[in-house]
Formats: sequence, C-alpha cells, structure tokens
Amino acid sequence: MTPELVTFGETMLRLSPPSGERLETATSLEYRTAGAESNVAIAAARLGTSSVWLSKLPDSPLGRRVTNEVRQHGVKPRIEWDNKARQGAYYIEQGSTPRSTTVIYDRADAAITTARPTDRYREAIRDAEVFYTSGITPALSETLYETTSNLLATAQQAGTTTAFDLNYRSKLWTPTEARETYESLFGDVDILVAAERDVHNVLDRQGPAEELAAELAADFGFETVIITRGEKGALAVHDGTTYEQPAFETETVDAIGTGDAFVGGYLARYIAGDSIAESLSYAAATAALKRTIEGDLAVVTPAEVEGVVENEERGISR
Amino acid sequence: MTPELVTFGETMLRLSPPSGERLETATSLEYRTAGAESNVAIAAARLGTSSVWLSKLPDSPLGRRVTNEVRQHGVKPRIEWDNKARQGAYYIEQGSTPRSTTVIYDRADAAITTARPTDRYREAIRDAEVFYTSGITPALSETLYETTSNLLATAQQAGTTTAFDLNYRSKLWTPTEARETYESLFGDVDILVAAERDVHNVLDRQGPAEELAAELAADFGFETVIITRGEKGALAVHDGTTYEQPAFETETVDAIGTGDAFVGGYLARYIAGDSIAESLSYAAATAALKRTIEGDLAVVTPAEVEGVVENEERGISR
Amino acid sequence: MTPELVTFGETMLRLSPPSGERLETATSLEYRTAGAESNVAIAAARLGTSSVWLSKLPDSPLGRRVTNEVRQHGVKPRIEWDNKARQGAYYIEQGSTPRSTTVIYDRADAAITTARPTDRYREAIRDAEVFYTSGITPALSETLYETTSNLLATAQQAGTTTAFDLNYRSKLWTPTEARETYESLFGDVDILVAAERDVHNVLDRQGPAEELAAELAADFGFETVIITRGEKGALAVHDGTTYEQPAFETETVDAIGTGDAFVGGYLARYIAGDSIAESLSYAAATAALKRTIEGDLAVVTPAEVEGVVENEERGISR
Amino acid sequence: MTPELVTFGETMLRLSPPSGERLETATSLEYRTAGAESNVAIAAARLGTSSVWLSKLPDSPLGRRVTNEVRQHGVKPRIEWDNKARQGAYYIEQGSTPRSTTVIYDRADAAITTARPTDRYREAIRDAEVFYTSGITPALSETLYETTSNLLATAQQAGTTTAFDLNYRSKLWTPTEARETYESLFGDVDILVAAERDVHNVLDRQGPAEELAAELAADFGFETVIITRGEKGALAVHDGTTYEQPAFETETVDAIGTGDAFVGGYLARYIAGDSIAESLSYAAATAALKRTIEGDLAVVTPAEVEGVVENEERGISR
Amino acid sequence: MTPELVTFGETMLRLSPPSGERLETATSLEYRTAGAESNVAIAAARLGTSSVWLSKLPDSPLGRRVTNEVRQHGVKPRIEWDNKARQGAYYIEQGSTPRSTTVIYDRADAAITTARPTDRYREAIRDAEVFYTSGITPALSETLYETTSNLLATAQQAGTTTAFDLNYRSKLWTPTEARETYESLFGDVDILVAAERDVHNVLDRQGPAEELAAELAADFGFETVIITRGEKGALAVHDGTTYEQPAFETETVDAIGTGDAFVGGYLARYIAGDSIAESLSYAAATAALKRTIEGDLAVVTPAEVEGVVENEERGISR
Amino acid sequence: MTPELVTFGETMLRLSPPSGERLETATSLEYRTAGAESNVAIAAARLGTSSVWLSKLPDSPLGRRVTNEVRQHGVKPRIEWDNKARQGAYYIEQGSTPRSTTVIYDRADAAITTARPTDRYREAIRDAEVFYTSGITPALSETLYETTSNLLATAQQAGTTTAFDLNYRSKLWTPTEARETYESLFGDVDILVAAERDVHNVLDRQGPAEELAAELAADFGFETVIITRGEKGALAVHDGTTYEQPAFETETVDAIGTGDAFVGGYLARYIAGDSIAESLSYAAATAALKRTIEGDLAVVTPAEVEGVVENEERGISR
Repeated sequence: MTPELVTFGETMLRLSPPSGERLETATSLEYRTAGAESNVAIAAARLGTSSVWLSKLPDSPLGRRVTNEVRQHGVKPRIEWDNKARQGAYYIEQGSTPRSTTVIYDRADAAITTARPTDRYREAIRDAEVFYTSGITPALSETLYETTSNLLATAQQAGTTTAFDLNYRSKLWTPTEARETYESLFGDVDILVAAERDVHNVLDRQGPAEELAAELAADFGFETVIITRGEKGALAVHDGTTYEQPAFETETVDAIGTGDAFVGGYLARYIAGDSIAESLSYAAATAALKRTIEGDLAVVTPAEVEGVVENEERGISR
Repeated sequence: MTPELVTFGETMLRLSPPSGERLETATSLEYRTAGAESNVAIAAARLGTSSVWLSKLPDSPLGRRVTNEVRQHGVKPRIEWDNKARQGAYYIEQGSTPRSTTVIYDRADAAITTARPTDRYREAIRDAEVFYTSGITPALSETLYETTSNLLATAQQAGTTTAFDLNYRSKLWTPTEARETYESLFGDVDILVAAERDVHNVLDRQGPAEELAAELAADFGFETVIITRGEKGALAVHDGTTYEQPAFETETVDAIGTGDAFVGGYLARYIAGDSIAESLSYAAATAALKRTIEGDLAVVTPAEVEGVVENEERGISR
Repeated sequence: MTPELVTFGETMLRLSPPSGERLETATSLEYRTAGAESNVAIAAARLGTSSVWLSKLPDSPLGRRVTNEVRQHGVKPRIEWDNKARQGAYYIEQGSTPRSTTVIYDRADAAITTARPTDRYREAIRDAEVFYTSGITPALSETLYETTSNLLATAQQAGTTTAFDLNYRSKLWTPTEARETYESLFGDVDILVAAERDVHNVLDRQGPAEELAAELAADFGFETVIITRGEKGALAVHDGTTYEQPAFETETVDAIGTGDAFVGGYLARYIAGDSIAESLSYAAATAALKRTIEGDLAVVTPAEVEGVVENEERGISR
Repeated sequence: MTPELVTFGETMLRLSPPSGERLETATSLEYRTAGAESNVAIAAARLGTSSVWLSKLPDSPLGRRVTNEVRQHGVKPRIEWDNKARQGAYYIEQGSTPRSTTVIYDRADAAITTARPTDRYREAIRDAEVFYTSGITPALSETLYETTSNLLATAQQAGTTTAFDLNYRSKLWTPTEARETYESLFGDVDILVAAERDVHNVLDRQGPAEELAAELAADFGFETVIITRGEKGALAVHDGTTYEQPAFETETVDAIGTGDAFVGGYLARYIAGDSIAESLSYAAATAALKRTIEGDLAVVTPAEVEGVVENEERGISR
Repeated sequence: MTPELVTFGETMLRLSPPSGERLETATSLEYRTAGAESNVAIAAARLGTSSVWLSKLPDSPLGRRVTNEVRQHGVKPRIEWDNKARQGAYYIEQGSTPRSTTVIYDRADAAITTARPTDRYREAIRDAEVFYTSGITPALSETLYETTSNLLATAQQAGTTTAFDLNYRSKLWTPTEARETYESLFGDVDILVAAERDVHNVLDRQGPAEELAAELAADFGFETVIITRGEKGALAVHDGTTYEQPAFETETVDAIGTGDAFVGGYLARYIAGDSIAESLSYAAATAALKRTIEGDLAVVTPAEVEGVVENEERGISR
Repeated sequence: MTPELVTFGETMLRLSPPSGERLETATSLEYRTAGAESNVAIAAARLGTSSVWLSKLPDSPLGRRVTNEVRQHGVKPRIEWDNKARQGAYYIEQGSTPRSTTVIYDRADAAITTARPTDRYREAIRDAEVFYTSGITPALSETLYETTSNLLATAQQAGTTTAFDLNYRSKLWTPTEARETYESLFGDVDILVAAERDVHNVLDRQGPAEELAAELAADFGFETVIITRGEKGALAVHDGTTYEQPAFETETVDAIGTGDAFVGGYLARYIAGDSIAESLSYAAATAALKRTIEGDLAVVTPAEVEGVVENEERGISR
C-alpha cells in the first residue's frame, strides 16, 4: 500500500475520571489514547484516506494499547519499538463553568523523545502525498526537533506536500522558544494551520485574521495558511484568495481533539482533490461532530460529515 | 382481574452505548426493553389503569427479560411462547447536535411476526374498556397485519373502545404502503393518535393541525383525533370541539418513548372518566416527565404527573 | 494541633442512582457521605483551615465509611463511637425539569441523636477560633437540641466565635417548631447564615434582604448576618454596613451542598483574617465550584477558588 | 386468581459493594432487594406456582423498588402502603477465607413492624393452598409477633397448609427468646423447616438429625419436619418415614438466599403434588443453582432445576 | 502485503451479562465480537503471522464494530459490505456448577449468509500459505456451503494449504447433516482439526483417539489430523507418526474461544516452519492463556506463549 | 501528636484493568494508590498505631489523590510538595495460571527521587518509637540512597528503633547492586524483614531459614530478623530464640501488598508491647486478610485480625 497521508508524532495514554468526578477523588479512570498526529491520521483514515502513523513506543502492553487503538480505525502504524523507555500519558479532568478543564501531561522521557529519522520513516514519507506533523513534536526533545526538521526536509525533497499545525502547548515551552523553532521549520512547510490565539501570542503578530494569514503566506512562502478561530470558524488564504468557513453549531461533550479533527477532515478532502472551500467545510463538519464524542478521536463516517455539510448548505440548522 | 386496557404489539431488547460513546467503539451496552404497545401499557399501569399486554416471544432468557421488565411496572403480560423464533432488538446511540441519534432495528423475523389472533388474546380484548395497538404492528409482517385487523374488529364487535397511534417508521415501510394499511384499519378505530408530520407525509394531508384533525374525524368516523406536535404540544378534536394542549418545558435526557408516554397518560385518564382536556393535560405531563428518564419507559407516578399538571395551571414555571 | 474551626453535626451515607436513572428502577447506587457540618469542615480544611468535626457514629464499617471520607480531605474527626445505634443515610435522585429532585431521609434514630456534650467535644470547642453547627442538628432529637444549646454556650463562654446556618428542612419539622428552636439558640450565635426563603417562611420576616439582615442583627445581637439568595448571590450586614456579593455563573452538575460550600469558604477566609467582602467573594466562588462536582463535597483548592474570584474582578467571563 | 402460595414478611433493600471491595472504602453499591418470604415466593413463582406476597412498605420510591423486583418474577404483591415509616435495608459484604461475610441489618422500625392482620391478608391466606412465613417475621416487633400468630391461625382454620422456617437470626434476638416464640407458634404449623444448627442452638435439642426431626414431629404434631444441613444436604421426616437428600455440588458465587431457594423449590413441587422425595430433590437443585447467582433470588427456570435433578439421577457429573 | 494466513467466516457481536448475573435480569451487557475464523486470524496475527480475514458484514456501526476489533489485533479485514442485511450476534451467560453456560445464537440471515466467492476473496486465498475456515461456515446457509466449497477448491488449486476445524454446533444442524457436508469438503482439506467428541458423535467413529486420527487421515487423505481432547490435551497424526501434547493447567476465566486459540497458535508456528511437535506445544500454550482472558480472543504475545511452553519443558509448575 | 510509627518512601498511583481484562485492550482502569511504606503505615494505623508517613509528591491533583487515600486510613502525611516533578505510577494486570501477573513501573523521576533529609522529616523520626523504610527507597535515586541512610542514622542516634524490609525489586536494580546498598545500611537497622527468596538470591546466602536468620543477626547485629516464606509462613530470630509462624489459609483476591500488611501488623503489636510470637501471629493474620481485598492496602480492623488469630488458636477451620 502506498499511503496517501503519513503523520509523525507522540501518542499518549489518556486517563480521565468519570464526568463530574475529580482526579483527586475518583476511583476509576477512563483509559483511551490520544496524540495530535495519530488523531489526524485517524480522522483522515476514517474519511477514506489511506494513512500511516510513524512513532516510537515502548514494547509493552501500554505501547500496544496505543497501536491497537490506532489500528482499530484503519491507520497503519509504523513503529520503532523501544525495550526500555516509558509510555507517555496525560490525565484530563473535564471542566464545567467556572471550573477549568485540567490537563496534566506525564510525557517526559517518553520513548519517542529519542526517535531519529529512520529509513522506514523516510521511505513512508517519500511515498506519501502529504506528510503531517505538529508543533508539539519538536517541543518534546532536542532529538525530536532534529528529527522533525529532517523529516520535513525529506518530504520537501521528495515532492511530498507538508502540513504543519502550530499546536502551541504552554506546558511544554515558552512562546519565544516555540516561535524560534517554528520559524526554523517553516521553510519546509507547505500548508500551515494555526489557531488565531497562537498567531497572536506565539508568532507575535496582531491584526485581522485574514491579513495575518496573507502576511504569513508572504513571509514564509506557504502554499496555504489556515487560521482556526474557535466559534468564529476558520479561514484559509491560498494564492491570494481568502476562504471563510463558519463553525457548525454543536452541543459539546468533549472539546479535546477538535483541532485535529479539523485538520484530518481538511487533509482527507484535499488529498481527494476537493477545492479549498469544500475541504474547509468538510473540516469544520468533522470538527463539529468530534465535539459530540468522548475522547480525542473523531469517530465519524463520511456519510455523517456529509450530512452536516449539506444541512448547512441547505440552510437547515437542525 | 378484568383489565381496563389491553395492548398488542412487539417489545424488543433495547441496546445502547453509554452517553457520549459510539456503537462502533463502545465496549458495553445498556440493556433495557422497549416497544410502543408495552410502553403505553406500562405508562397507563403506573398511572392506575389495570393493563394487559398481549404479545408473542421466544421461550428464552431474552423473551423472559422482556416480560420481567413489563411485569415490574404492574402490567400483566399474556404471552404466546415460541420455541424457535428470535427476540427482536434495537440498537440506539443518542445524538448530540450536529450528530443525529442512530437507531438500528434488528427485528426481522421476531417471534411476534407469526402471531395469530388466539382465543386468549380475543378474550382479553373483549373484557377490556380500551384496546390499543400502533401502526408498527401491522408493518411487521403480513400475518401481523391480518392479526391486527382481526383484533381491532374483535374489539369493535365487543364494544371495546379502540385506540391507534400511526407511529410511522420509515425503516419499516414507505409512506404509501403505510397509508394504505392504515386506511384499511381506520374503520375499526375510535381514537386516532397521529404525529403532525405523519399526517403530512404519510396520510398526505396538508393544512392547519386543527383542520386536519377535523377532516380525519369526518372522513373515517373517528370518535376522537389527537394530533401531537412536538414542542408545539398537542390538540384533540372530539365531537366537533378542538382542545389545545401546550407542551411542558423539559430538560431532555432521552426523547425516545415520549409519544407512548403521552398515549399512556391520555388513556389512563380517559379510562378513569376524565374530560378530554384533563386527559390531554395529563398526557402532556407524562410525556414531559418521560423525557427526563433514560430508556423508553415512563417510570412516573400519579403524584409526579399531577405535580407537573398543577404547576402549569398555577402558572408556576419552576 | 489547636484547630481553627470545630463543627458538630450528623453525617449520613448518601445513596444516589446514576444520572437519568430512578431510585425505583436503578440497580446500583453511588455511595458517598454528606452532612452540613462535615461539608463545612471539609470545604474549610481544603482551603487551609485546620478543622475538627465532632460527631457520634456507629462502630461499624458504615460509621468508618463516614470518617474515612471526612479524613480524606484533611479534617480531623473526633467521634463518639456507639456499639448499637444505626448509621443515618439519605437517598437522592437528581431531577431534571419538570422532574423534581427527590430526597428521602433515613436518619431517624441515628447514633448522633443520643449525643451529649462530652468533655472531648467541649475541649475542642474551647480551643477553636470558630464553632459551627446548623439548624439541622437541634432538629434531630430532643437530646441533640440540648447538646447543641450546651455547645454553643460553651463556645460563647470560652470566647470562641459561633456560626450558625438555619438550614431549615421541612422533612424534619414545621416552620413554627424550627423558629422557636432557632430563636432559643440565637443568644449564643455570633454569625448567622440564612437562606432568604427561610427568613421569609421560617423566621416569618418579610421585606428586602438588606433590611431583614439588619433587623435580625438588631433583634438578636448577631455580629454578622449573611443572607444567601441563590442566583441573586448573597449579602452580609456587619456593624451596620451591608456587603453585596453576586453569584458566579455555573453549569450545575449537582446543586446539593452549595450552601455548605459557601459557609466553608466564608469561614476559611474569615479565620484567615480577610475582610467580610473578601470572605464573601471567596464563599461565592467556592459555592460556584461545588456546583460543578458530583456529591455534597466542595472538592476544591485555594488556587481554584482564587481563580474564580480573580476572573470576576478582572471582568473576564470565561 | 386464586393463589397457590401466600407468604408474609419483610423485604429489604440489599446494598453490597463490588466483589473484593469493602463497605468501608467502596464508592458504589449494588442495589437489590431481599427478604426470606419474598425470596420463597419468587423461587416458587418462577417454578410454576401462583404466588402472592403480603407485606407493608413505605409509599416511596424505595418501597416501589421492592415491589417492582418482586413483581418482575411473577409474584403478585399485596401491600399495605405506609406514608411515614421507613424502608428496611441490609448491607452485605461478601467474605473470602479468612475474611467473614459481613451483614449489617438496618431494619429497625421498618414499615412492616406495625403490620396488623388485615382482611386482605386473611382473604389471600384462606384462598391459598400453602401459607408460608419464617421466624424472622415475629422477631421484628411485638405487633408482628401477634400478626404472625394470627395469620398462622387463620390459615389453620381455613384448611390452608402452613409452612414455617425457623430462620434464626442472632442479630435480632437471643436463642431463648426465639425458642419461646417459635414454640408458641408451632401449634399452627404443618411443615417445619429448620437448619440443623438452629435445632441444636435455638431449639436446644441434640442428637442425630433424623432423630431430632422425628422428635420435633412427635412433640409438636408437625405433618413434616425438614432439617437442612448445609453441605450434608437435607432430610425430611413425614409420617414416620425419613427421606434423605444430598446436596448438589456447586461453585458458590453468593450463598445468601440458599435456604429460601430450597424452601421455594420444595413448596413448588409439594403444591404440584409431587412426593416428598421428589420435592426434596427439586429443593436441593434449586438451592444449588441459587448459589451460582449474585443476589438473594433464585433466578432459575423449571428446566434448569430439572436438569440438575436429572444429572444427579443419571450419575452424570458434568 | 502477501498474507501468510487467510480465513473466511462469520464474526458476530458477543453480548454477555456481568459475572454472576443472568441474561434474564441483567441491566448491562459486555459488548465484544467473536467468530471462529476471525478468532483464529487474530491469534495467529498476534503471534507474528500476517493474516487476512474475509467476510461479509452490514455497512453499519455494528459491522464496523466488528472490523474495528479485528483490525485492532493486526488482522487485515477484506470485507464485502451489505447495505441491508443484519449483523449476527450471540448472547452468552457464563455458567458455574451446576448452572450451565447459556449460548443464544441470533445469527440467522446475517449478511454473510449471502456471501459468494468473489475475486477479491480468491485472490487473497491464492496468495496465502494457508487458508482456514471451519465447519460453522457451511452450516449457515446453502449459499455459504457453496462458497466454502469453492474457496477450499480455489486454495487447493493454487497450492495453498487448507485447514479446517469441524467446530460442530448442535444449534445449527444435526450430526448427520454436518457429517455429510464435512465429508463432501474433506477432499480439499489438508489439515483437519476435530474435537474428540465430534469425531465420536458427528463423524460417528469410535475408538482410541490415535487410531481415529490415523483412520481419518487414511480415509480422506489428510496431510495432518489433529484431535483436541479438552483436559486430556491434543494429538496429531502426520505421515504415520503420532504426536501427543498434554494440556497446560489453567485457572479458567472464560473457556469460549479455546479451540480457536489452539488452531491460531498451531498455524502461526506451522507457517513459521516449526515442527509439528513444537507447533502443538505452542497451540496448547496459546489455548491455556486464552482461558484466563474474558472474551473469545486470545489476546496474547509470543513472549507469553513461549513462557508457558518453556515452563513445561523445564518441568516448572509455577 | 507524637507518632509511634514513622515511615518514609514513595507512594504511586496504581492503575489496573478490571478482572479478566488485559492492559492492552481494557477501556477503563481502577485507580488506587500504593507504596510499601504507606502500605505499612496504613496497616499499622488501622490496627491502632499512631502513624506518620513522610514523602515528597507533586503539588497536583495526582499528588493529592495519594495523600487523600493515605489520610483516609488515619495516617498523617508529612509531605514536601514539588511544583514540577511527576507523580509515579504503576500499572498492574492480575494474572491467572498460566498467565503471570504483569507489573509495569512508571516511577522514574518521581518527585521523591530528589527528597533530602529535611528538619521536618528528622523531627518526626526522632519523636517516634519506630522508623520504617524499605529497600525500594534507596533504589530509586542516588539522592534517595543518601537520604535513606541519613534518616536511618538519625533514628539510631535518637534511640528510635529502625525496621527495614529488603523488598528487592528486580525491575529497579541487580541483586549485586541491591546487596551492596543493603549492607551499607544494615549498621543502622534494628529489625530486618526479608523474604526467603531475597536472602537466597540477593543477600546470596543459602541454607535453612532459621540458620540464615541467625547468621544475619550475628553478622550485622540486628536485634530481630524476620524471614517471610510465602505459604510456609514466617519465622523470627531474636536474642537467639527462633519463633515460627505458619501462614493462615486464604482465598486470594489480590496478593499485592501482602508483605506490607505483614510488617504493618507486626509493628502495630510490637509497638503495643506484645511478644514476638504474638506480633508474628498478628502479622500473619493481617497478611491473610489483605489477600482477600482488592488493592495494595490492608483495609482491616483489629477485631478482624484478632478473629483470624483466635480461630487458629482454637483450631477452628471455619
């Protein structure tokens, strides 16, 4: 199989108390898996894209717990197995106004932090149409920064389109550190995805979203810049044209993973040859559906996404 | 015991994943039972009506699971036991905007599809004040159509009032098939209950609800026509008079079974001798309470229903 | 350890069906503990106050279930153990409009109903800065009325500030009985906390909340009167000055225990030497956070409470 | 319906932590119902006997929880509803060698403790073939002693066979108190069921089981005396003949309710006209099956019981 | 990928009440998937064999539930999707002496019953080293009998080794029907696996297991005949030599799927080139581990299986 | 409060799948806490010893989860809070013959690994009668080795009796590394507890247990040496006398924590002034009860332990 999409990054265990319970007093935890790059691969695979996820995991029941869940959704994992390193995890307690959602990362020294660019990784990337990774990966270790840089360059040299989501995480680094790293990688990025608040706070650029997108495209030579804006939807600038996409209305059950669902939906349609406007609409619908489902994953079908998209076009609000 | 209310129809297992989980990825299912005619009998029995439910079930733990739950609420089942046929089931995944609620029927060839009008059925119906069945029953098999027709006629001949809810299910038949069947049964129906959308789409009649009800009463000789209109409430036309009933405000936990709760509440008061206006109010309150409870069943008490009715009358919004 | 806060009262088992299920049909119950005075001690202890809870319990796994949970949050229980008496319990089914929340008390003849003022109780109270009990305690038995009266007097004589929350419960006594008891105790109370509806219905005083508070302070010589007003917030009158505190916006998961969280938050800051305005703000934030958590207990941290308080001050709505 | 079997006694809520958890630290409880006399009625009803259970319960969701479960198995409850009294409960933590099973009764002042012999009770008993109650009932209150005595006498006068199981509970009374009460009731008992250890410790009679049974029959004029002996099986003495019945081998999941299952199985066959030997075999098989099921109830079918009985006869060990 | 092992057959939903609960009274069900041929493919895939599973499923969340679980373990499903047919299921209640395990098949008219030999199926089989199916498949429909026959012949013609497990199910057909079908397929089978009791009861051959295996090999030209004998272990006859394999001692949690685990373990080593004796030992160890795990699937690793095998060889009993 | 027992060591989160499920495929985890030194403090505290546990934890909901559970059982935690370091965890999947129990430690770089001997630690130890730590603590980091050494010396200088359990963990270090460390600490140890297999494999001494204990006492000057021998019980050598203690029979639910329960039971009675023989008997009974309870903790009462001890003495087998 020649994969259409290849992603690279860390996937963690996701441990969360039942709804309304606190991490401090709960007696059981829901046990799932989550990671930006596998989330994107899963969303895309479920929507018809043949997808491969590259990573490094401990050779243990915990590492297998991760690959099992990724495979369940049709993504093919290509894993370096490590006999010693640990499996990263994160604990999440869902908030409720005025109680904030609590996230505790426990990912230091995870197996992936020593991942180097292997031939198997590079071969997969060269064969793919799109290679995706996010700004979390280079933040995890110096080695991973180098690997990310190398894999993006590998893709560029092979003619594989590269997509990169800033995914700024304040628990991993400072805005300044992040910006320097991002900018050193931008030369090998074709499609940039960024949350509007990260453009403001991390890339340190202010102004209307449309202008920021155009400015970024001009400064770094991106083919496409997509800015996501939460309830205000998203916009893309490509070849000087701006595309606006409102967000679909949702009753949110679990907001984590919304951005990854958006990217997975976008890339699935981009790879299938749809227009930017169509891909954005599909992305927004995938993201809206994700918010109704427990866990990080966009457990959706093409028919469901299309149903949401069409309702919008017909002006039906449901 | 001479029952006041007798109902006839299929009751299925109801299998549903936990809230926020999907049928495709869940690892446990809630395991309940559900069926329009037993739902109605249960609601009425809980509200004081002596009720009998007629059906045919497999002689297996699954068939007993169904009768156990029906008996729990005080309904007396009168069952034909089948040594071979299967137990019907339905899978339901609750939606959340913009994700739709998914219902998968798995009821083909259920034991009831071969049920014929037995003497035990007929005896129960002749003794009752009201016999109720719904438009689901004749849709399940040719045999069941004939049985339904026979039992409605039996009731009419015995002077038992007959009540019939269209309960159109697009997964069972087309609007045209349904309309033809309905109309062939209407001659033996005294009280017709119909959702407004089914009057439009299945009976193919357009216009204001009040006019449609009056028209139906005139065309088929119904004693009473009740049209349910979701959030807009319900109305009844009886003897040329129209009764309007607004819906009570609810925080919905599970909408399935609302219509059956409405009918059960109505029949309980109708049988007890209340006026149509009082019965409608009671019906709407029963339906509102049902929506706050997981599962198809209106697990309510007379005091709770009366509390809702009175709050309305006093203008208290809670 | 010299405790800063000592409370005295009953703590019950709290048994509740899963969300959306009814007590009448559920097959499992959540199993927690709850009691106004331990709730207050727990909230205060979690917010930094050294707290002791006085009570009497059966010497059984059920009595230990209660003390274990109280200790978990850092409160030191000082318990009289009873070899024979029973453990009180309450059953609670959360409502959903228009279904009311159902509370069934099963606390008659609980071990505490025979509690007399022991030297250990009195010693703890004399050492404390604040002694708190609520109007539930004297309602539980004649003996407990006498004990409550004795302990409040003990506190007053020792110079320990006394705080008392009316906590009127219509399932325990009539408004008239309650008022007479309350008024006989008021002479030994420094800080009175009362829900506005209890001032109206039980103390039988009508008028604007501010005036009622001032009137109560004048009539009974309270140092401070705090009136809680649900969504309208709270106000305190102290030394002729009125302090108003709006309620924080919440998405409510479980409303039970809100009042106790408010009192615990207030006393924690009062004991720490904060102003009345600051203490009220802290109290309201603690109460708002409590509403997002299953169970009676305010499982919160100082940082979380401060976060809510500060967001308000900065005008950030989140 | 003329019932074949009528029983009278208390049914409690049964609250138990998950397997391997302790009452002191668990956070959820399984929520079932249990009572010797409803257990017997349920076992018999499931095995084909038309059964009525007489009791008094609070008019609350908890009282309805009890009747719902009893009805589920086909028993018809005939209940006096009480607006004020409480619902009895018991907490049970299953042991595991060397940890004992812990039972905490919380049944004082339950609604039934004030039950008097009503006309409805008496009418049901007069119509029945067998009236059953156990030694728990007269232990619960002086009133209940009188009621039990009255109902046994009513049965005798009407020609209804009476069956009585000592069911000695050391948490309710002393052996001496129990013996005096038992002996005052024995004059109206036809079939006595007694655990061997209760014959030793409570009736204070020593010797081989066979002799004890014969002695009891002679002293009190019982038609039949059945002595249950745990793993050693059971024996009956009737008309001077002794019938021995070994116990069936079981993998025990939950031992509570075994004795009631035995009695229910016995009475079902006795009422159906089987011989004493056949009835004992059926009783032992019902008891063995009960031990494999969580909860007090013998959720079994005639086919299952017959399967166990036949395997024994054929010498098949499975 | 060229698969080493291809299997063909039905996979059902597997619905089971919690341990100690009955299907008749439970309120939740564990929700897994199970089918002889996917069980074998999963066991083999987990033990290092590249495996493909061929089947036909409904295009619904239920059909996807099945493929998701199969993929999770590394098997590649190749599915014909059906828009209309139903998903088969089975209900299982685990027994406990003397209560039998109850299995209720609900698989009539499942999607696979109309599966015909497609080019995609045939291509996969031709590429494989081993093709496996079981005697359940031809029992499900006349069409499936023809398809099974065709696919076995396809394999034989392509030089793919064929393996067939009788897997007689008395709920599907009579011994006579089964034997006739089996014998009509044996001509295209290389490796026969049969439970000893099925050789006796279905193939109607009596005698010592070793002789039966030799006799079958001679009569039908099997390359290898493996007879499984429960606690007595297994034996294989190949080329006139008999290999005996004792069973490993186990504490059984769930016995369902043991035979499939055995076959999966055997084929994994057979394909890897191990000797028959080594493969049998591996098979027995895989089967023993399966019995300690809930569900039909052998969720094991090569290291675990090897650990069990080696302990035996070293005579270590653990 | 002057504590009688002070312990020092790491406490982890304990994450385990439901019984019969695997870490690789489970979807929820039980969430408890566990650590040798808090386990010992909890067992002793529950048996009447005033106990303090010293540790270092992250200032997070996870660190509070740990202290909450420790406090629940009456132990007073004295914690250094760390704003950055992580909370250790361990994953445990219970085995079943022939599947081994799987333990995955995830404790590297836990907060405690940087714990230094603080004045608060030293003050607690100087005030105590016994200071306990185990061989796990010095294995966790170089810093912890120094701290352990320092705290043992502090205890010795203050006249506090020291107790040390080898607790060898092969996942933390080699036998040779462990032995060197142990021996460097033995000079400050009064009571040594060692599993027989660790004496063999780690201390590298062979021979009958009684001789090994005497030899160790002689070589290192221990006041008491206790050797635990699993099903063979335990023995102590003190002042030249040997005390033998058989193990109590148990049905094991969860074996983890048995050794800690033994030590906690022993120290509770040692501190209370009992003889060595009495303390050993109490220790063995505490250990036996622990095995019947899920989790690491000996959730037992003095009455339960005494019941087990007495049954043995009376020769009652239960």
